[in-house]
Amino acid sequence: MLTSQNNTKEKEGRAMILERITSKGLAHFSYLVGSDGEGAVIDPRRDCGIYVERARRLGMRIRYVFETHRHEDFVTGSVDLSRITGSTILHGPGTPFAFGSTVYDGQEFALGKIRLKALHTPGHTVESMSYALYDTTAGNAAVAVFTGDTLFANGVGRADLEGPVPEMAGLLYDSITGRLIPLGDGAAVFPAHGEGSVCGIGIGKRTVSSIGVERALNPALQVSREEFVRQRIEERHELPAYFKNVEKWNTDGPPPMEGPPRPAPLRAEEISARLHQDALVVDVRTPAAFSAAHIGGSYSLWLDGLASFAGFVLPVSAPVLLVAERLEDADRAARYLLRMSYDRIEGYLHGGLETWYAAGYTCESVPFLPVRDLAQYLSEGRRVTVLDVRSIREWESGHIEGALHIPAGQLERRTAEVPGDGPIATICGTGNRSSFASSILRRRGFTDVHTVLGGMTAWRNMGR
Amino acid sequence: MLTSQNNTKEKEGRAMILERITSKGLAHFSYLVGSDGEGAVIDPRRDCGIYVERARRLGMRIRYVFETHRHEDFVTGSVDLSRITGSTILHGPGTPFAFGSTVYDGQEFALGKIRLKALHTPGHTVESMSYALYDTTAGNAAVAVFTGDTLFANGVGRADLEGPVPEMAGLLYDSITGRLIPLGDGAAVFPAHGEGSVCGIGIGKRTVSSIGVERALNPALQVSREEFVRQRIEERHELPAYFKNVEKWNTDGPPPMEGPPRPAPLRAEEISARLHQDALVVDVRTPAAFSAAHIGGSYSLWLDGLASFAGFVLPVSAPVLLVAERLEDADRAARYLLRMSYDRIEGYLHGGLETWYAAGYTCESVPFLPVRDLAQYLSEGRRVTVLDVRSIREWESGHIEGALHIPAGQLERRTAEVPGDGPIATICGTGNRSSFASSILRRRGFTDVHTVLGGMTAWRNMGR
Amino acid sequence: MLTSQNNTKEKEGRAMILERITSKGLAHFSYLVGSDGEGAVIDPRRDCGIYVERARRLGMRIRYVFETHRHEDFVTGSVDLSRITGSTILHGPGTPFAFGSTVYDGQEFALGKIRLKALHTPGHTVESMSYALYDTTAGNAAVAVFTGDTLFANGVGRADLEGPVPEMAGLLYDSITGRLIPLGDGAAVFPAHGEGSVCGIGIGKRTVSSIGVERALNPALQVSREEFVRQRIEERHELPAYFKNVEKWNTDGPPPMEGPPRPAPLRAEEISARLHQDALVVDVRTPAAFSAAHIGGSYSLWLDGLASFAGFVLPVSAPVLLVAERLEDADRAARYLLRMSYDRIEGYLHGGLETWYAAGYTCESVPFLPVRDLAQYLSEGRRVTVLDVRSIREWESGHIEGALHIPAGQLERRTAEVPGDGPIATICGTGNRSSFASSILRRRGFTDVHTVLGGMTAWRNMGR
Amino acid sequence: MLTSQNNTKEKEGRAMILERITSKGLAHFSYLVGSDGEGAVIDPRRDCGIYVERARRLGMRIRYVFETHRHEDFVTGSVDLSRITGSTILHGPGTPFAFGSTVYDGQEFALGKIRLKALHTPGHTVESMSYALYDTTAGNAAVAVFTGDTLFANGVGRADLEGPVPEMAGLLYDSITGRLIPLGDGAAVFPAHGEGSVCGIGIGKRTVSSIGVERALNPALQVSREEFVRQRIEERHELPAYFKNVEKWNTDGPPPMEGPPRPAPLRAEEISARLHQDALVVDVRTPAAFSAAHIGGSYSLWLDGLASFAGFVLPVSAPVLLVAERLEDADRAARYLLRMSYDRIEGYLHGGLETWYAAGYTCESVPFLPVRDLAQYLSEGRRVTVLDVRSIREWESGHIEGALHIPAGQLERRTAEVPGDGPIATICGTGNRSSFASSILRRRGFTDVHTVLGGMTAWRNMGR
Repeated sequence: MLTSQNNTKEKEGRAMILERITSKGLAHFSYLVGSDGEGAVIDPRRDCGIYVERARRLGMRIRYVFETHRHEDFVTGSVDLSRITGSTILHGPGTPFAFGSTVYDGQEFALGKIRLKALHTPGHTVESMSYALYDTTAGNAAVAVFTGDTLFANGVGRADLEGPVPEMAGLLYDSITGRLIPLGDGAAVFPAHGEGSVCGIGIGKRTVSSIGVERALNPALQVSREEFVRQRIEERHELPAYFKNVEKWNTDGPPPMEGPPRPAPLRAEEISARLHQDALVVDVRTPAAFSAAHIGGSYSLWLDGLASFAGFVLPVSAPVLLVAERLEDADRAARYLLRMSYDRIEGYLHGGLETWYAAGYTCESVPFLPVRDLAQYLSEGRRVTVLDVRSIREWESGHIEGALHIPAGQLERRTAEVPGDGPIATICGTGNRSSFASSILRRRGFTDVHTVLGGMTAWRNMGR
Repeated sequence: MLTSQNNTKEKEGRAMILERITSKGLAHFSYLVGSDGEGAVIDPRRDCGIYVERARRLGMRIRYVFETHRHEDFVTGSVDLSRITGSTILHGPGTPFAFGSTVYDGQEFALGKIRLKALHTPGHTVESMSYALYDTTAGNAAVAVFTGDTLFANGVGRADLEGPVPEMAGLLYDSITGRLIPLGDGAAVFPAHGEGSVCGIGIGKRTVSSIGVERALNPALQVSREEFVRQRIEERHELPAYFKNVEKWNTDGPPPMEGPPRPAPLRAEEISARLHQDALVVDVRTPAAFSAAHIGGSYSLWLDGLASFAGFVLPVSAPVLLVAERLEDADRAARYLLRMSYDRIEGYLHGGLETWYAAGYTCESVPFLPVRDLAQYLSEGRRVTVLDVRSIREWESGHIEGALHIPAGQLERRTAEVPGDGPIATICGTGNRSSFASSILRRRGFTDVHTVLGGMTAWRNMGR
Repeated sequence: MLTSQNNTKEKEGRAMILERITSKGLAHFSYLVGSDGEGAVIDPRRDCGIYVERARRLGMRIRYVFETHRHEDFVTGSVDLSRITGSTILHGPGTPFAFGSTVYDGQEFALGKIRLKALHTPGHTVESMSYALYDTTAGNAAVAVFTGDTLFANGVGRADLEGPVPEMAGLLYDSITGRLIPLGDGAAVFPAHGEGSVCGIGIGKRTVSSIGVERALNPALQVSREEFVRQRIEERHELPAYFKNVEKWNTDGPPPMEGPPRPAPLRAEEISARLHQDALVVDVRTPAAFSAAHIGGSYSLWLDGLASFAGFVLPVSAPVLLVAERLEDADRAARYLLRMSYDRIEGYLHGGLETWYAAGYTCESVPFLPVRDLAQYLSEGRRVTVLDVRSIREWESGHIEGALHIPAGQLERRTAEVPGDGPIATICGTGNRSSFASSILRRRGFTDVHTVLGGMTAWRNMGR
Repeated sequence: MLTSQNNTKEKEGRAMILERITSKGLAHFSYLVGSDGEGAVIDPRRDCGIYVERARRLGMRIRYVFETHRHEDFVTGSVDLSRITGSTILHGPGTPFAFGSTVYDGQEFALGKIRLKALHTPGHTVESMSYALYDTTAGNAAVAVFTGDTLFANGVGRADLEGPVPEMAGLLYDSITGRLIPLGDGAAVFPAHGEGSVCGIGIGKRTVSSIGVERALNPALQVSREEFVRQRIEERHELPAYFKNVEKWNTDGPPPMEGPPRPAPLRAEEISARLHQDALVVDVRTPAAFSAAHIGGSYSLWLDGLASFAGFVLPVSAPVLLVAERLEDADRAARYLLRMSYDRIEGYLHGGLETWYAAGYTCESVPFLPVRDLAQYLSEGRRVTVLDVRSIREWESGHIEGALHIPAGQLERRTAEVPGDGPIATICGTGNRSSFASSILRRRGFTDVHTVLGGMTAWRNMGR
């Protein structure tokens, strides 16, 4: 006879713990999972203190660190985390990691009342693993699976990183259909990335997912193996330059990171001196503030876009200086950059940009162009190059006639395509990427550059 | 052609938001769900500021408050939340609510890019509703369902609260099999309670669930309708006295709660004076501290058990005084009690128990009894009543021979069954419920009461 | 025989508690003082929860609320605080307060081991009181004095608020020399305001002060009574319009404030609709962001200057809309305004200004003018009105030849003095007040308005 | 002409910053002082992250670390802080420091608009320095002085640490009267310790002090030089064993400390294993909890007393295990111990004591003895040793007739004086030090030990 008497409140009866740690910027998901005081972390980020502290709070000892694969977009925290916690790092076979141990397909790991089972799911990379989660108190159906970059909400991993795409794409299809879908529709899907990541195509906004939901709704799973492979071949992926460095670090073991980044406050004079030593300025203020005044040569990179676009323009070896409205923003920017292997954050302009211009240094500006003015110029036939820096998908969903299209991430290496002899109006969705684009053009010597205020959104709403 | 260019980082492209707010004590789950700046709360708790603040942080306006049913174990926060946010309260049909609007089966509510669909799922109560969640960007499969007290991880709702059990249990079965399971195995299940709640039987430790997982693993769903109904009839449920008050409040609309509870600091003299005016003392310190010294007449109620057991002994009209190690604990205890409709928290003993005894007031104690000593007494045939206060399920899984069994929640009304003429050793799992039991016995005039240190866990580990 | 054995760590031996609560914006200092569980608050601010919470943390019951005088610049929190804590409000004689009790000169109040003694010190207002602090365990010398607006670090209170200045100034001199200085050089001075307040002249940056230090260093105390009075007569003080409302509220008792302000998130459409109903927009973003784009008609009021300048332009009855970079800033702005009796904060533009222009609404801009360009224009003899909006003191310490001087606080009522037929370049210290000034001019219909980037600081540093 | 126009709100006009950082336990005060972005720290504690973070928040670069002297009671953080911030360490002459630079009497240091002037004030130690603070904007009077352990609120430094007491005491008197008092009565006094420190005699509860107040109220300054020296000679000071280690570290430079301490969670089995390897258990729970059940051999050391008493019983080389109610307490205990040079904190018992006894391990108890029972025993002439462990001063202010007096700090080396053949009742102020004393006696093999509940406070209040 069952009863609803409250019988499980004593401390020995702990619930399964499953926490998703979201790292914004790269839209990275990592997980802390465990039971009865034993736990594991899946795909830890570089600044790994968060797992250590959460585990202590929960009274959980981290016994394992599981890597779903060698990440290309962020530096792994597994080596630091393993050192701090004495845990074992586990990753898939076939990549010459200088740390950790290799897990084989089918291997199981008990953590209190839960169990993780390793599944080899190559395709995104050759050693990609997924880890199925079982509740040992309840039976044999998998309750969830950590899918890394193999399967996302609404998307699948890219197959162009290691080996020939057709082959890798085939492996990916087989991994999903042969290893993941058999876990059952009910298994929740916990991937390594959410919407906004470049590690897969069309990752959706959904934060709830399951094998059943993906089987029903994921566009990539509605087609045949052939078509799936064909789609992967057709995809065009970006390869920010920093990926190479991250891959190397994630193979050899990254340099240790001590504590959270704390960029040093720098005075205007110190910033100025470093500019003469090839430091690059990353200005994370709003496009409006950048428009009005900024240090000449700065990149305009809004905070939420920093992780996505910095990798296209900053060499990993470059000393970086930050300009931000406030300390918290500089700290956040530094954290994002360190996760991407930018270890030379020299400091930030203390007191904000006003200390720069009050100290007598010159500023530059990039005028904002209202959509109404742009419309009028175009209707009057004035010569103005509309440079649309949105993605191909956005471009294809509608654009201004006669515009030139170069996605923001490609602009720096394709500035030769931009006509240098007249006004340029950069445009994107609302004004963040276009501000980034304008800053690239200004660095390359273009002088008559405007950022379209409100972008295509304002353009479409112009009738209001 | 799809591309992995980062195209969705602009602000207009917001992810679906789905947050679970866990209220410990009653193991209550509520949810904040939304998209594109529009949101809803499902089953808000009484101290509803948390939803207001989270929504502001997320830039989300709360448009709806959905009640899955008239809760019996906690006071709803829907009326306060609706007043503060201007949102509409929605609940199921057939209960004479004095507030909100009735939702009908099949009715849909759009919130940005998501959609909630109401499903009438009676059984736990007559007006129980579930709400299926759809991602309008991706297709027609439900991605999740908010199941209230209809379906839990590993359990189902109790069917004894309204109407005849056989009939309600049948409705419950039909609701689960006819309305929830057809949503598809992939739909995540988000219930109103987790492990430890008395609103359902055998709720599991799992925090991840789906229709598929429940279909495969939930014991209640492995049987026929007849057997399901029979099981519900056989269940024995507790009905703490405060339920009646909560049901009344949740029908008529509860008194507003202004801000978080801040029990007043009281000096020993003030506590003493209130004791003479029928105030009850709830001592939330550890059983060890209670054992050594406490104010005579106190209930020993450890913090994590307060929500489960206070309702069996405290009249809702009683003035309550708190004894705690520190302010945070007193605040937390007050919060738990206010959620249960105990609105007369008069204050807490400032400075802790030591200010009581240093002020010259007398203390009482309840000796701890080590399991080794208990074992020796029993082997020597000494007269000692072992009073086991665990649940029936725990009792049936093994107990000390000759022990008397009265679950902790029933003890106060069944003290007549306890022999008054010799030593009593209360025992539970590790020592929390037994300390509560000892405090009940001491209040009822039993003098020779001992709490078994470590309970049945220590008993089983005695060999060590 | 004395010993250094650690004998005072037991809980009964509590240190004297003295905490300064600084409210930025108005540079307001309030104090929590007490001992042995009994405390008092001096000059509480309107959002008084901070005292309640600190006192609970410290285990202190607030028994008294002392007002040093009827504040003119911020709404008192004494009535709310008294209601919440059951404490007694005490203020000086001669003002028809509708709440609290009158304290008489020489009256003493014991709080555990400390003692507060009331001293009537008129001059700033007729009923101004100071409160001397004694440590009853140690002897008869005053250890500190709460001086309200009578004596500041490096300054003294203004004497123009009530009654004829010569008379009030004489009273002020007599209060300081006759009542405060006799307390002894060692007495620490704790005033109601720090640097930046308009309640006194030349308040210094020092946060440490004493009677001795003020006697030695305070310029106002280095002169004769006659000269002191003469100086007070010569001072020119600002009287922001909101003072009148605050004085009325602080006499009659202000409307209660429930909880911290939480301005509602508003969409662009909602902001637009309210603009047509005479709501005023306060834009607290940086001058740079304001320069590039803002909602037409907005006031540019940087956060740290909001409390000082809003009172010159906003009617207390006006509905106010906020534009900020982030929620925290909107909350802070709302808090500042509510402290000044602006109770009609209707909400803030959710998502920041970009949601405004992305929605298709038009923006305005005010160009930044680099000091180099200004210098060149002037040297070329171009017609440009340099409008210097700094204080007289700053103006007198050096300014651009030919500039027009109108302090920022006076500009709105003196716009007739500004030539309307040519370009205007507003200038201040670094660019905050000039942005405010530009926003006033734009509201008044001036079109050719520029804000000088970096202000006089950049001007002086131009040589770099 | 002065005006109250708000003219100093621009960022360039920053207030002097002066923050006191209080480290509880050792009642240690350190200070962050600065102006215009330049700052210094006086007497930093070992876990020096707090200064780094505060300075960053305030936009202040730490340029100097001033040591008032070689501290004997806590490990200096100057070496770590200097390394992290690139600042210069400065200390007095005559001690062979292996780090930092020597400052000479009269040397001055400018930090923006403030100035610090070094004063050699030997007596407490030979190289003791004080640092006077000047506000360069206002004149030549010192506004404050950092006095280290030379002058406290209500007390003076002990003179027994280095060299012959008569000589050092004379130096101390001369330093105070010759160097500090001449700074003027108005100078605020900021010492290195507050009430509860063993670095001086009779340090008062006052948190506000000045030269004038000390001159008037400090008992040590009311007497002649001869009498002052005589008093110092008569004082009896404790010398906890760990002082020697701290002095060595503070001369040679302490081992670096990386981040805040995070003691590892240990299971009962791991604690048990370490007990067999000479680890010592420090139980920081309340005396009541300790009384009821604890691990045999534990020291009972309440958190607020840990810093004062651990040094008398724990060898600096001993591995330490912690027992606490919750993680925060274990962390706090670890922090206190690391500040005292205890670097071998092995971990804490995760889950609290209940996991120990539930695991089947035995516990011990020390009965609480109510004062009424003690009074009755004594009146009946029963044989019971009342062991009073308060300080001499408390003892001399009144005690139970016939009691044995051994201050808590001396008990471990004086247990031979305690009669071993009958019941012992330890008593102190309210029950913390007596619980510590009982734990010492139990470790030394005394079996019939009781802790008097409420101590002498309850004894005196017994009539109630």
